[in-house]
Amino acid sequence: MSRLPTVHDVARAAGVSRQTVSNVLNSPGIVREDTRERVRKAIDDLGYRPHASARRLRTQKSSTIGIRLDPMVDGISGSILDRFLHALTEQADAVGLRILLFTAARPEDEIRQFGRLIDGSDVDAFVLTSTFHGDPRTEWLIEHGQTFVTFGRPWGIDDMNDPRHAWVDVDGRAGVRAATESLLERGHKRIGFLGWPTGSGTGDERAGGWRDAMVAAGLGDGLVSLLETAVDTVADAREASARLVENGGGLDAVVAASDSLALGAVVQTNGALPVIGFDNTPVSAAMGFSSVDQRLDEVAAGVLDLLTHNEGTAPRHRLVTPELVLRSSHPPVVPDER
Amino acid sequence: MSRLPTVHDVARAAGVSRQTVSNVLNSPGIVREDTRERVRKAIDDLGYRPHASARRLRTQKSSTIGIRLDPMVDGISGSILDRFLHALTEQADAVGLRILLFTAARPEDEIRQFGRLIDGSDVDAFVLTSTFHGDPRTEWLIEHGQTFVTFGRPWGIDDMNDPRHAWVDVDGRAGVRAATESLLERGHKRIGFLGWPTGSGTGDERAGGWRDAMVAAGLGDGLVSLLETAVDTVADAREASARLVENGGGLDAVVAASDSLALGAVVQTNGALPVIGFDNTPVSAAMGFSSVDQRLDEVAAGVLDLLTHNEGTAPRHRLVTPELVLRSSHPPVVPDER
Repeated sequence: MSRLPTVHDVARAAGVSRQTVSNVLNSPGIVREDTRERVRKAIDDLGYRPHASARRLRTQKSSTIGIRLDPMVDGISGSILDRFLHALTEQADAVGLRILLFTAARPEDEIRQFGRLIDGSDVDAFVLTSTFHGDPRTEWLIEHGQTFVTFGRPWGIDDMNDPRHAWVDVDGRAGVRAATESLLERGHKRIGFLGWPTGSGTGDERAGGWRDAMVAAGLGDGLVSLLETAVDTVADAREASARLVENGGGLDAVVAASDSLALGAVVQTNGALPVIGFDNTPVSAAMGFSSVDQRLDEVAAGVLDLLTHNEGTAPRHRLVTPELVLRSSHPPVVPDER
Repeated sequence: MSRLPTVHDVARAAGVSRQTVSNVLNSPGIVREDTRERVRKAIDDLGYRPHASARRLRTQKSSTIGIRLDPMVDGISGSILDRFLHALTEQADAVGLRILLFTAARPEDEIRQFGRLIDGSDVDAFVLTSTFHGDPRTEWLIEHGQTFVTFGRPWGIDDMNDPRHAWVDVDGRAGVRAATESLLERGHKRIGFLGWPTGSGTGDERAGGWRDAMVAAGLGDGLVSLLETAVDTVADAREASARLVENGGGLDAVVAASDSLALGAVVQTNGALPVIGFDNTPVSAAMGFSSVDQRLDEVAAGVLDLLTHNEGTAPRHRLVTPELVLRSSHPPVVPDER
């Protein structure tokens, strides 16, 4: 079998380093025009095929990551996983990996899809989203010796550090704590929290961040009157916000577990109170309220790092600290007269 | 270069027909146990890989559709292509096709990606989004004899019916016309249009739908005072809405080219006027204003239909009529006292 040309062959023929060849392929803009042309000529002359089948045949790897495209969710934060997919696809592309999408209505369907993709050698790693406690998907992948990383921690106590389960998650607790602290620093004391019904790991962590900050500021008494929950719709959030205003005893600010909930609070209070949401959606930017950004670029980078460096003793998880994006604290829903 | 084993080799080694091998691979339940074992042994002995690379080599079909994941756009309508991707992935999955994602910053980058994917036999068709006048991508694909369908019509007059360019698009003009007519039917006369700066095919078509309806209703005089444009941000849309109110001479309703623009009008007028947007985003649902739905399920179905039935004389394009989703005509941005 005649050897396929490698990146070394191209580098030698063009008289450049291997890194330069890689740059021409992946970031041509950073390479001088004449060098770029020389490398491209060498690629053409040698018939070097940097990607796809050539590499697959060489390494028996498809260089493809399988990921389920989560069902569309209504609610303005629903696009968060789409934004993660964008970040992942862009960063994967830069390192020569591709994203293969599939759909699955339930975990069992997703497992069936895993099996089909593995049988067909169509992918060599999986990225999972929307993890939950006792998730059968991760168990299955571990049992079948597959490479995978989850966006979302394992929501069970004992397996958080299981080296077989690589994960990246966003520290929602830290994000909401920072949001609450920023309001405390500006002198607010009666800061309400608008959360989801208890029981979801993600939601409980976010509520915990608000509680941590309030307790640390010596405002831990009677927190129950400052806590309301709603399902993730603007209509429900408006009703919950009305209850917060009614029971909050001088409520002067609101932190919400999502931008959908935050939008409900902004609309309900007509912009009279500062509101901080979570997810930094385009809607928070459009409406001008503050929000906690999940830093999905960091999440995607962590996922790819764990996928491509899956040996050694380094920790098999990353907890990304989100970033508070502050905007006008009193969004002018009703504009001034012009 | 040594030849990869084929299904024929397996059939010969196992002493069965090629169809039986195929059955063992695809519907093992219908094959007798002893036959199944014999075929599996032959597969193992020969190192035959029925799927992925092997199948690709046999049929020159990867059963995979390549699509560029469009860059994230800010603005609340930005997720429209993500929603199309969801519909496409779900429907493709149902017919055994997969979606391979890639990214590309510019049309030339996308063409380079086409080349790489074709060279690698990684995909056997492309779906393109965000077409524009004189699009070099479609020219390239036609020249290279590739199967593709665009979501978005060719924005040039003479190639609309070119059978080599299959396309699906949404009839934005009809959608905006229907929105405007629904307001006319409810007695509104001073209906303003909030559009994008002229020059985009999509935007000009939508403005045309409003003009058509107004002219047909005998309200075509002085339309210029009812037309304002803004870039697709809420802030710009608010300013344009303020101008509409000022110049519109008793403005009593607004139709907008997007939900971002509509949200600007809703916020600026504080819900005092009925506003109809375009895209039926989660935000329009959350805020309770009407919007034109692009029926992306229909678009995806049309794309797949054109991809999988690419012979014969049937028209090579589909123009999907969008659907007006009516909600409360006066969204209560400022709630009643409870």
